[in-house]
Amino acid sequence: MTDPAGLSHFDADGAAHMVDVSAKPVTDRVAVARGSVVMTAQTLALITSGQAKKGDVLGVARLAGIMAAKKTADLIPLCHPLPITKVALTLTPDPALPGVVVEATVKTGGQTGVEMEALTAVSVACLTIYDMVKAVEKSMRIEGIRLVLKEGGKSGRYVAPGEQP
Amino acid sequence: MTDPAGLSHFDADGAAHMVDVSAKPVTDRVAVARGSVVMTAQTLALITSGQAKKGDVLGVARLAGIMAAKKTADLIPLCHPLPITKVALTLTPDPALPGVVVEATVKTGGQTGVEMEALTAVSVACLTIYDMVKAVEKSMRIEGIRLVLKEGGKSGRYVAPGEQP
Amino acid sequence: MTDPAGLSHFDADGAAHMVDVSAKPVTDRVAVARGSVVMTAQTLALITSGQAKKGDVLGVARLAGIMAAKKTADLIPLCHPLPITKVALTLTPDPALPGVVVEATVKTGGQTGVEMEALTAVSVACLTIYDMVKAVEKSMRIEGIRLVLKEGGKSGRYVAPGEQP
Amino acid sequence: MTDPAGLSHFDADGAAHMVDVSAKPVTDRVAVARGSVVMTAQTLALITSGQAKKGDVLGVARLAGIMAAKKTADLIPLCHPLPITKVALTLTPDPALPGVVVEATVKTGGQTGVEMEALTAVSVACLTIYDMVKAVEKSMRIEGIRLVLKEGGKSGRYVAPGEQP
Amino acid sequence: MTDPAGLSHFDADGAAHMVDVSAKPVTDRVAVARGSVVMTAQTLALITSGQAKKGDVLGVARLAGIMAAKKTADLIPLCHPLPITKVALTLTPDPALPGVVVEATVKTGGQTGVEMEALTAVSVACLTIYDMVKAVEKSMRIEGIRLVLKEGGKSGRYVAPGEQP
Amino acid sequence: MTDPAGLSHFDADGAAHMVDVSAKPVTDRVAVARGSVVMTAQTLALITSGQAKKGDVLGVARLAGIMAAKKTADLIPLCHPLPITKVALTLTPDPALPGVVVEATVKTGGQTGVEMEALTAVSVACLTIYDMVKAVEKSMRIEGIRLVLKEGGKSGRYVAPGEQP
Repeated sequence: MTDPAGLSHFDADGAAHMVDVSAKPVTDRVAVARGSVVMTAQTLALITSGQAKKGDVLGVARLAGIMAAKKTADLIPLCHPLPITKVALTLTPDPALPGVVVEATVKTGGQTGVEMEALTAVSVACLTIYDMVKAVEKSMRIEGIRLVLKEGGKSGRYVAPGEQP
Repeated sequence: MTDPAGLSHFDADGAAHMVDVSAKPVTDRVAVARGSVVMTAQTLALITSGQAKKGDVLGVARLAGIMAAKKTADLIPLCHPLPITKVALTLTPDPALPGVVVEATVKTGGQTGVEMEALTAVSVACLTIYDMVKAVEKSMRIEGIRLVLKEGGKSGRYVAPGEQP
Repeated sequence: MTDPAGLSHFDADGAAHMVDVSAKPVTDRVAVARGSVVMTAQTLALITSGQAKKGDVLGVARLAGIMAAKKTADLIPLCHPLPITKVALTLTPDPALPGVVVEATVKTGGQTGVEMEALTAVSVACLTIYDMVKAVEKSMRIEGIRLVLKEGGKSGRYVAPGEQP
Repeated sequence: MTDPAGLSHFDADGAAHMVDVSAKPVTDRVAVARGSVVMTAQTLALITSGQAKKGDVLGVARLAGIMAAKKTADLIPLCHPLPITKVALTLTPDPALPGVVVEATVKTGGQTGVEMEALTAVSVACLTIYDMVKAVEKSMRIEGIRLVLKEGGKSGRYVAPGEQP
Repeated sequence: MTDPAGLSHFDADGAAHMVDVSAKPVTDRVAVARGSVVMTAQTLALITSGQAKKGDVLGVARLAGIMAAKKTADLIPLCHPLPITKVALTLTPDPALPGVVVEATVKTGGQTGVEMEALTAVSVACLTIYDMVKAVEKSMRIEGIRLVLKEGGKSGRYVAPGEQP
Repeated sequence: MTDPAGLSHFDADGAAHMVDVSAKPVTDRVAVARGSVVMTAQTLALITSGQAKKGDVLGVARLAGIMAAKKTADLIPLCHPLPITKVALTLTPDPALPGVVVEATVKTGGQTGVEMEALTAVSVACLTIYDMVKAVEKSMRIEGIRLVLKEGGKSGRYVAPGEQP
């Protein structure tokens, strides 16, 4: 039984548990998450020139995000392990921020959604950008990590208000 | 040798590597990072009332952050494994956001800093809050993950502009 | 082929292997395991008073048990990785021991049972209690870790002799 | 600051943390833990005859215990990662139980002790024995996991009452 | 969409991704891989005499290979996590090399093949042999790690040219 | 005590253990390992053209190798966990093979060597190349994984016969 207040990760006595999803159907599920690393224009120029020539910050961050999606159930205590069937990340320099916008798309055919996998992929890709560029700018900030789209499962399609999925 | 542009995680040919820190002295190092999960006032009330009675969202998130700090070198491709000597997190409900402010403090006696460990602890604690509360609000956002303080090592003490460490 | 003596984890030549379960049907499976940490009455009082006020030993141990269930195939060499669909632990102070009784329930929809997941969850929850309280009593003992109930799969329902599932 | 009640894994407000050991000296530390798996005489005979001929249950369990010692900080939430310098396990069939007695010895040169590493090694070796033999006996029990000896560090040498280290 | 050149692990822009397999059917799949560790005749004699008496190098390497198969998706960045249903390794001393021939067979019921799981099992078993014997011979070489057989999935049965599966 | 035959990973009774290195001094240690993936000239051309334009096979493999070095103690049962201070890989297309030559250099300041870390980095980088290119050629082979150079520790400098370190 779930806590009446709506927090399904706790039972009626308030004890944390991994929710029973055994009766839920296996359906195709997708989640898309976004976030960004905000930095100075000079730092961004360093990253984008590196892309062109050498020192592929965004390539390393993309791979870190993909691998992190596979570790989600290891990181988030009450997440179910899921058979991920796709992970893709786009990392787009945005001079208007200035910074890098990260988007992750994750799919599964499972009994629960992959929102946490997409959010974890974005978070770790952002952290990796930070790590690789921190020698030149310590004041970067990771901003706006949020769910953009969710499809599949009982609750159906969700598009975040104001987002273009 | 490091890339002239200043990105030490690449060699002169632009190939990613784990930087050689073998000649750096072992010194005491501290890092403090912060971030927050922004939500509606109702969602925050659900968390804070849970704290008082049952369903300890912040306690679970705190533990997830501590454990994630120990996995940093596993998540961030070019991070060195470090003998962490302390991890502590505070998670403070803030009605003004409304949301939860997360702060992590990490210490080591090692040859390189623990900024990434502190930032990873904050990120995973925020993701865990999201996971536990997403059944009631999908539109929460993780905001402002940044380094607040860094001490020890050659580059000395760093306090982020405008931060109260 | 299995060793005639009945140890299915070895082939006919005595070489360890991960048994082929590919021909077994996917069925719903449940396992319940129990164990306890035996300590002095004073130590138990410290834990139970902490529950009420602050310092939630049992909450930390519960989470450690849940996360450990997900690591079972990583710890037990010949265990199959399984899509766990539920993990729940109860941790009950028992003044008669004196100590804490730990029970774990694990579910899967898979081709082999979750006994080891339930036993691993109990073991790691008990170890975590030990870790958190060892500063005040080193002589605690972990006792009676055993399977209580198993359902699903070819061998059917098993209830341990003398146990109340 | 530590909780006045003596549970060092909580701060003065009752929040769990990984204790700061950065000011503790690096010293040589040893811990010895023991436990056993209790079974029927027939099951034990199966294991011991397997040792002689084929199907090395105890060899597999020993290796699982050694590898588990290295995962301790991953399993026990508030454990510090430690540079383990030795792990050895003995697994001794004991017809008087009947069952198998497991003993683990772990060493480190670190800032905190290796009790949890030794207890984790024993626990996982016992779980592995259970896993490999459960096809013939589900009613085995893991009993008496406890610390036998601890040396090094501020608190000095500890020998458990009634134990022969 | 896949890179026209045929490298499915990159999208049309050359960005690495974990390929979408969600539309592929779940079928039974098998892969067999082989490799060997080449050493002096004396070193091989040390291993084979150890097998008979004490010091079971091949038993340890077999277990390391089995456990490594379960970590494949953790090691190979773009591999999908798969529900492995069988892992078996044979390790055969070959005086003609002289050395040890390692063969791994892995099965799954999944949406993509287990070639990488079989190749990873062979690689880690070979590395473990190296580790255990390096005190007596540093010049050993791991040779000829390759896929021998693959069954299941759209591309059908593959037998490597010149191999006896 | 070590097995008289010289296999230090076994005790006098032939039981596997993680060798006690607590009395060994902490010294700077380096290891260099090499290996290669042999393929057709067309496959190699696909990789090298990808490097120039898009689809960076070698960049992904390099990162996989770096991350694998950090997992060595998790993969090789009797390896000690070590504080790695440097990991670098070069991946060089060689038309004469045809194929890719992989070389890894690993450093530590520890009580035992990093040969296994260097060999593991090479092995996993080679496996990753295989994974990324297997859609176009299944018959690639991983060849000649061996230690090239080892420095530091009691046994001193080792250069493999016939190698140019």
